[in-house]
Amino acid sequence: MVCPTSDLCVGGCNLHASEEGAINIGGLQHFAVEIFMKMGIPQTLDPNTKPLPKGGDQKIALVGGGPASLSCACFLARLGYKDITVYEKEKYLGGLSSSEIPQYRLPYDVVQYEIDLIKNLGVKFVTGRMLSTKDITVDSLLKDGNAAVFLGIGLPEPKSVSIFKDLTPNMGFYTSKDFLPLVSKGSKRGMCACKAALPELYGNVIVLGAGDTAFDCATSALRCGARRVYVVFRKGFTNIRAVPEEVDLAKEEKCEFIPFMSPQEVIVKDGKIAALKMCRTEQLDDGEWIEDTDQMLQLKANFIISAFGSGLYDSDVKEAMSGVKLNRWDLPEVDSTSMQSVSNPRVFIGGDLAGLAETTVESVNDGKSAAWYMHCYLQGIPYDSPVELPKFHCPIDEVDLSVEVCGIKFENPFGLASAPPTTSSAMIRRAFEQGWGFVVTKTFGLDKDLVTNVSPRIVRGVTSGENYGPGQGSFLNIELISEKCEEYWCQSITELKRDFPTKVVIASIMCSYNEEDWRYLAKKAEISGADALELNLSCPHGMGESGMGLACGQDPVLVKGISEWVRDTVKIPFFVKLTPNITDIVNIAVAAYEGGADGVSAINTVSGLMSVRADATPWPQVGREKNTTYGGVSGNATRPMGLRAVSAIGNALRGFPVLGIGGIDSADAALQFILCGAPVVQVCSAVQNQDFTLIDDYVTGLKALLYVRSLGLSGWTGQSPPTVKHQKGKSVQTLYDENGKVLAHFGPYNRKREELLHSIRLKSSILNDVGNCPLKNTNEVNGYITVPMIKDILGEALPRIGTYKNLDNTKQVVALIDDDMCINCGKCYMACADSGYQAIEFDPQTHIPSVTDDCTGCTLCLSVCPIIDCISMVPKNIPHVIKRGLRYEVHPLDDISQK
Amino acid sequence: MVCPTSDLCVGGCNLHASEEGAINIGGLQHFAVEIFMKMGIPQTLDPNTKPLPKGGDQKIALVGGGPASLSCACFLARLGYKDITVYEKEKYLGGLSSSEIPQYRLPYDVVQYEIDLIKNLGVKFVTGRMLSTKDITVDSLLKDGNAAVFLGIGLPEPKSVSIFKDLTPNMGFYTSKDFLPLVSKGSKRGMCACKAALPELYGNVIVLGAGDTAFDCATSALRCGARRVYVVFRKGFTNIRAVPEEVDLAKEEKCEFIPFMSPQEVIVKDGKIAALKMCRTEQLDDGEWIEDTDQMLQLKANFIISAFGSGLYDSDVKEAMSGVKLNRWDLPEVDSTSMQSVSNPRVFIGGDLAGLAETTVESVNDGKSAAWYMHCYLQGIPYDSPVELPKFHCPIDEVDLSVEVCGIKFENPFGLASAPPTTSSAMIRRAFEQGWGFVVTKTFGLDKDLVTNVSPRIVRGVTSGENYGPGQGSFLNIELISEKCEEYWCQSITELKRDFPTKVVIASIMCSYNEEDWRYLAKKAEISGADALELNLSCPHGMGESGMGLACGQDPVLVKGISEWVRDTVKIPFFVKLTPNITDIVNIAVAAYEGGADGVSAINTVSGLMSVRADATPWPQVGREKNTTYGGVSGNATRPMGLRAVSAIGNALRGFPVLGIGGIDSADAALQFILCGAPVVQVCSAVQNQDFTLIDDYVTGLKALLYVRSLGLSGWTGQSPPTVKHQKGKSVQTLYDENGKVLAHFGPYNRKREELLHSIRLKSSILNDVGNCPLKNTNEVNGYITVPMIKDILGEALPRIGTYKNLDNTKQVVALIDDDMCINCGKCYMACADSGYQAIEFDPQTHIPSVTDDCTGCTLCLSVCPIIDCISMVPKNIPHVIKRGLRYEVHPLDDISQK
Repeated sequence: MVCPTSDLCVGGCNLHASEEGAINIGGLQHFAVEIFMKMGIPQTLDPNTKPLPKGGDQKIALVGGGPASLSCACFLARLGYKDITVYEKEKYLGGLSSSEIPQYRLPYDVVQYEIDLIKNLGVKFVTGRMLSTKDITVDSLLKDGNAAVFLGIGLPEPKSVSIFKDLTPNMGFYTSKDFLPLVSKGSKRGMCACKAALPELYGNVIVLGAGDTAFDCATSALRCGARRVYVVFRKGFTNIRAVPEEVDLAKEEKCEFIPFMSPQEVIVKDGKIAALKMCRTEQLDDGEWIEDTDQMLQLKANFIISAFGSGLYDSDVKEAMSGVKLNRWDLPEVDSTSMQSVSNPRVFIGGDLAGLAETTVESVNDGKSAAWYMHCYLQGIPYDSPVELPKFHCPIDEVDLSVEVCGIKFENPFGLASAPPTTSSAMIRRAFEQGWGFVVTKTFGLDKDLVTNVSPRIVRGVTSGENYGPGQGSFLNIELISEKCEEYWCQSITELKRDFPTKVVIASIMCSYNEEDWRYLAKKAEISGADALELNLSCPHGMGESGMGLACGQDPVLVKGISEWVRDTVKIPFFVKLTPNITDIVNIAVAAYEGGADGVSAINTVSGLMSVRADATPWPQVGREKNTTYGGVSGNATRPMGLRAVSAIGNALRGFPVLGIGGIDSADAALQFILCGAPVVQVCSAVQNQDFTLIDDYVTGLKALLYVRSLGLSGWTGQSPPTVKHQKGKSVQTLYDENGKVLAHFGPYNRKREELLHSIRLKSSILNDVGNCPLKNTNEVNGYITVPMIKDILGEALPRIGTYKNLDNTKQVVALIDDDMCINCGKCYMACADSGYQAIEFDPQTHIPSVTDDCTGCTLCLSVCPIIDCISMVPKNIPHVIKRGLRYEVHPLDDISQK
Repeated sequence: MVCPTSDLCVGGCNLHASEEGAINIGGLQHFAVEIFMKMGIPQTLDPNTKPLPKGGDQKIALVGGGPASLSCACFLARLGYKDITVYEKEKYLGGLSSSEIPQYRLPYDVVQYEIDLIKNLGVKFVTGRMLSTKDITVDSLLKDGNAAVFLGIGLPEPKSVSIFKDLTPNMGFYTSKDFLPLVSKGSKRGMCACKAALPELYGNVIVLGAGDTAFDCATSALRCGARRVYVVFRKGFTNIRAVPEEVDLAKEEKCEFIPFMSPQEVIVKDGKIAALKMCRTEQLDDGEWIEDTDQMLQLKANFIISAFGSGLYDSDVKEAMSGVKLNRWDLPEVDSTSMQSVSNPRVFIGGDLAGLAETTVESVNDGKSAAWYMHCYLQGIPYDSPVELPKFHCPIDEVDLSVEVCGIKFENPFGLASAPPTTSSAMIRRAFEQGWGFVVTKTFGLDKDLVTNVSPRIVRGVTSGENYGPGQGSFLNIELISEKCEEYWCQSITELKRDFPTKVVIASIMCSYNEEDWRYLAKKAEISGADALELNLSCPHGMGESGMGLACGQDPVLVKGISEWVRDTVKIPFFVKLTPNITDIVNIAVAAYEGGADGVSAINTVSGLMSVRADATPWPQVGREKNTTYGGVSGNATRPMGLRAVSAIGNALRGFPVLGIGGIDSADAALQFILCGAPVVQVCSAVQNQDFTLIDDYVTGLKALLYVRSLGLSGWTGQSPPTVKHQKGKSVQTLYDENGKVLAHFGPYNRKREELLHSIRLKSSILNDVGNCPLKNTNEVNGYITVPMIKDILGEALPRIGTYKNLDNTKQVVALIDDDMCINCGKCYMACADSGYQAIEFDPQTHIPSVTDDCTGCTLCLSVCPIIDCISMVPKNIPHVIKRGLRYEVHPLDDISQK
């Protein structure tokens, strides 16, 4: 949340050059952590943590409770150290993150959650203890049995500037080091919220500096009552060091900027600051900056806040560090890689005190580096060994995704479908290395049936959104089965099973309706070592013309026959891959079942024609003639058909395994197939949209979905917490105009809203500066029930999927619009007027919609509303009267019949 | 392009409060006009223009060739005036748009195109003539037979400021009125491009002012050689008048800003400007601004450009306006509504001269208003009559979209499907008023079969992108047929036909497989006056359980039987609506054909299950039990199936009408269905996503698509011109690093690119500041061939859609990546590695991809590339060697078989 992502990850994102722009990486991380926090996930020690060569009982002390120490303590704990203590002089932890970064940029709860995660690992925290000859010293810690010490006390004092000497807060002068902690203490609920501490500002406030801290001071000053805030800095706009997000916020909140000015003298009248004298600065042609004291300006000011950085000046603190050599800037001299003191190998230093970090993330990195090299030092590991720091580990990682189908154990339910991602043995090998649980080989046939592909043959689906770029909602392909020979595939299977014995390899095979061929190929695949077979009786293009694929799979008699031959030939399980291009897919599944198949795979691609260009040529177009043929549509567009097929078979043949296929592009989609009765799922289009690394998301996601079930969180949908009132993640306030009418969110109403919000901000207590959403207290999560396994939830949705007559038409619902989240766009009104029941009225001025009694609950308004959960469907409490049109004005039909 | 949209339309857009933010309205308009310009569409007089009561021969003169006059002339010409002359003192037209707005903000070609459009209507332009007692005067124009005169000469002179008196360009002083026209003349190719005129700047340049003009001066100054540009203004940042886009551009180009300063004295040394003395300004608590001359600053400067606005000071010009009363600011006094001179009713005034407009768009509006009231004045129309200004008209408007199917004339091919948008007669009425060509009523049955819906029943499709908001790629519904009684529908049809005789009403009816029922209902619908019938034999949910819809439509025998009954009963044409949930849709179409149907409608919705939540409850979920049933998927996700069905029937039954249905969400999609053989198309989901007004887009879009065919533009795809090399619409330059390697577009490479581009900009001639894309000269468009009608292109794609064996596998293609458009994101590499043939190499440093000889032309890379047309498929010139896997390392199979 405080990382300068616009300079780092986001600033380096390749997609900045695409229409959509860079990925909001910081925002995504923030979101993920927020959800995790709401789930109340604790950190746990990975049971696979390597035992420490010299044991983990060595005592370690860390001084200072800020980002560097926290990070260091966390990684040491993950490495297996059990006796770690963090000493902090304040009553609260978090260092600058708590004391200086304002609540609206970094809520205290977020810092607290990070600290809780470290406590989860057994790290001890002692507050009210400081580095001082009167309290703890480096020497006393080492003598007290600590094997090593980490110093991360930051730079506690403001840089002293002579012209501010003798100025006090009473007179109107603050350094950022005085000002921001007061604001934090006065405004952070979890920290203290002692409102009395809040500086009360008024009039003109001058903030000096151009770093992030200066902008934090500026926006905080506004919240403390300043009427006008000037940010004054020495160089130009092109030299501002603060991240653009901070500058934009200050601009949005109407701070003023005065560049090229250096403060020279503070004018004090009657013991209060009255003005600041500044001189002009100038950059010479050689790049050097000079101050021109002949050119002076004076700016009225009631308060001045200097944000010129800080240092270590207190001699008592320096004495408490005795034995740690200081450099010419009076800071500890450290090795910039190991963060180890050059004079005392048992002391490591990080964060501002080490003088290397400029941002919170860099301080965190200092602590991380120090943890690793302290570990090397303590365990006698050479410093040049590869760094192996353990990752975050939590109970979700322990969830067991394994599932058994037909006696075969799948370590996770995610496999690659028989499709382009399994074109070659080398690709399958890489997929296994990435973590995929199983693969179905690209379909192979007999050498006499070898095919040759045309090109182009795999095209983007134009079934949604922009028809270019990754994230295609569908693909269409006219690719045939594998171009490789049977021998290649059988040998590949043998090798894959040899090298990946815990992975499942299913051989996909295809022949025409010929007993001898099927028996030969099935046997050969079995001998090669395949765990199971998939009979491709469903390829929708090309192969059918040769009497294969679809040509067999549409006829229950042929499907049963082929199944019987294969059943009679092999001992390993086999599955029939079904086509959705059929009137009744259940019928074919029953034929496979009756023929002795162990299960079915559903669905193969949907036959379609993707697009025709304006010049009447299709895409894909082959050869000079620009011809095409119907291809197979895959991906999300086919998911409703996939879910339908899987659940229909699941309901018709309870317990008969279905390998789910069709638009599985996430753990969430996989879960839907599992709930509809598919124990494992096959993926292709999603890999085409990205690559094999998807498996990490899918495995973690499905583990989380299963784990969340055990928490019994109310109102959650899978991993999504209930939506709180918000706009773009910010909480919204109901505001009224002078006539007491609700203010809408656009144009003149929005300008009015902004004015009101500005004046509310000026008037209201800073304590109201609430964070985004109410947070879940981690302590509330107690008494987990068991985390289910896949088999426990398999087919759970099936009883709810049935006939129309089974639906209760006496329980009607109606739409309810949340005025605060509504953006007054009118989409609901338009949809209801032209595709619904004219049951939404729309205020012509304010564009505020309201639902009338005519609502029949069709749900179209909810379906098109651009704001998630702004519209909900609630039970209808008035009688459900159906307009049959009987009271329609009657015109005699006879008129017409006589025409 | 120069409209402050961020203040106006975009600033007022409701969607600013949604995640996606406001719609880029200005960008869309810009894009549309650019494409129009490339097409070379001329403006024509609408043949339906009302004749003028007093004729159109009255002579009208307009003085000044800027936006106000151009707009006034254009609207007068559209109203039917034939003798209009615009007089302009310069050699070029466009006023400020040409002379002052820089080329990179408003290319000259764009202005020229606007002028050409006005010339298209016969307006005459005379250059080199000015308002002066020595040339033309208001009096002389009126005496010369002009019935009315419009004055739009702008404010030709800079505001005179005493401290700049006696300063000249030679000394380094420019006003914006001197400076910008020189830049324009020196940089606008079409205008003059006399490079010699370009001001040559160097060193420090101070621009005074905070309006758009000031920022135009600042960014132009950089392009004229300035080393550093300071924009100095009197008030603060919160008071900047220029639009944010301009300020951002200046910031991006590293201009510096100095607020709160008022210029006091220019320091001149050796006849050259050396510095500017300024004093501080301050806003008092009462809001008043004061200058504090005790506080002075001096800023070194080699050049000063003042952008303090302009006025009318030349007494000769004032004299030439004699008879036109001036106000206290020495500007003509005009009525602010009619723009008419208060002293001379034959004189109208607009633009800067009228003193009301602040932006180009407001000047244009002045001209528009003046045109209307001048028209009222000339024709004797009361000024309080409603304003009726003709819109832009062009040959595209004249394209005939009508088509005849089974003897019924459709005025356009767009109709509403039997679906929620035709739920009631009142809705159909509104749809006709909006311009829809036909409707199919919501399906009605016999009163004994009356249905009652459940709720919720229409849900968003989660088949693509975000699963909320308009623009859903699909919907799923479990809505039944109409809840209204047969009488309601029959009477509605009667009334609709009475009130909209040129519109086509098709009655959709449904019964179970019962001869008497079908005969009764078909007859009743025919008697009510329906133009045709659609037999709903395909509703995929609910109705089938009662032996209706799908239950009939899956069986060719039943379809033929029902068709025969209806054929025998009615004389009007009828169509059978087909289900796609079937093995062979052609089979059913043949049955309908053999039963005597006049055609078929294809396709009805696709049976599916949209989604299941993580708690195993489906959506939609009905009643306390949260049950669901399979519903019908509609929208874009089904388009490939729709196109497949329509083309397959089209190829099987040549000439048998198919009413196309399935994801028709644009003119482009409609054209695809037409090319596949559907003469008319039915729409539902797209209306659900928006409203009936879609018809305007569809009609205009299809007209344009047909019209464009007549232009024979090479390389175009429909309305899209060939993609030129660009990134985000800006042309890209190939740049090299110091080792001669191509520079990539991200991270450190991009920073290097920006530096290089900055230095190129500083060094290079401003003449290279080329606009976005090469423009098509309108004169090149000649010799149109005939614009086709729908019947002329119907089914044009059908011969290209056939069997796989018909595809030529000897003509292979391979991928070609355009390095300049490539954003180095690696998507192509990832897709090729994990789903393709490992035929793309990826430079680990620069992330520049390259295609190897292993490419098999699968096209997946093109399909996932986020940059349109960055990858293209080109003929393969090396031999196509298929890797059959034969050279794969052999491990004896025996090992395995012995295990």
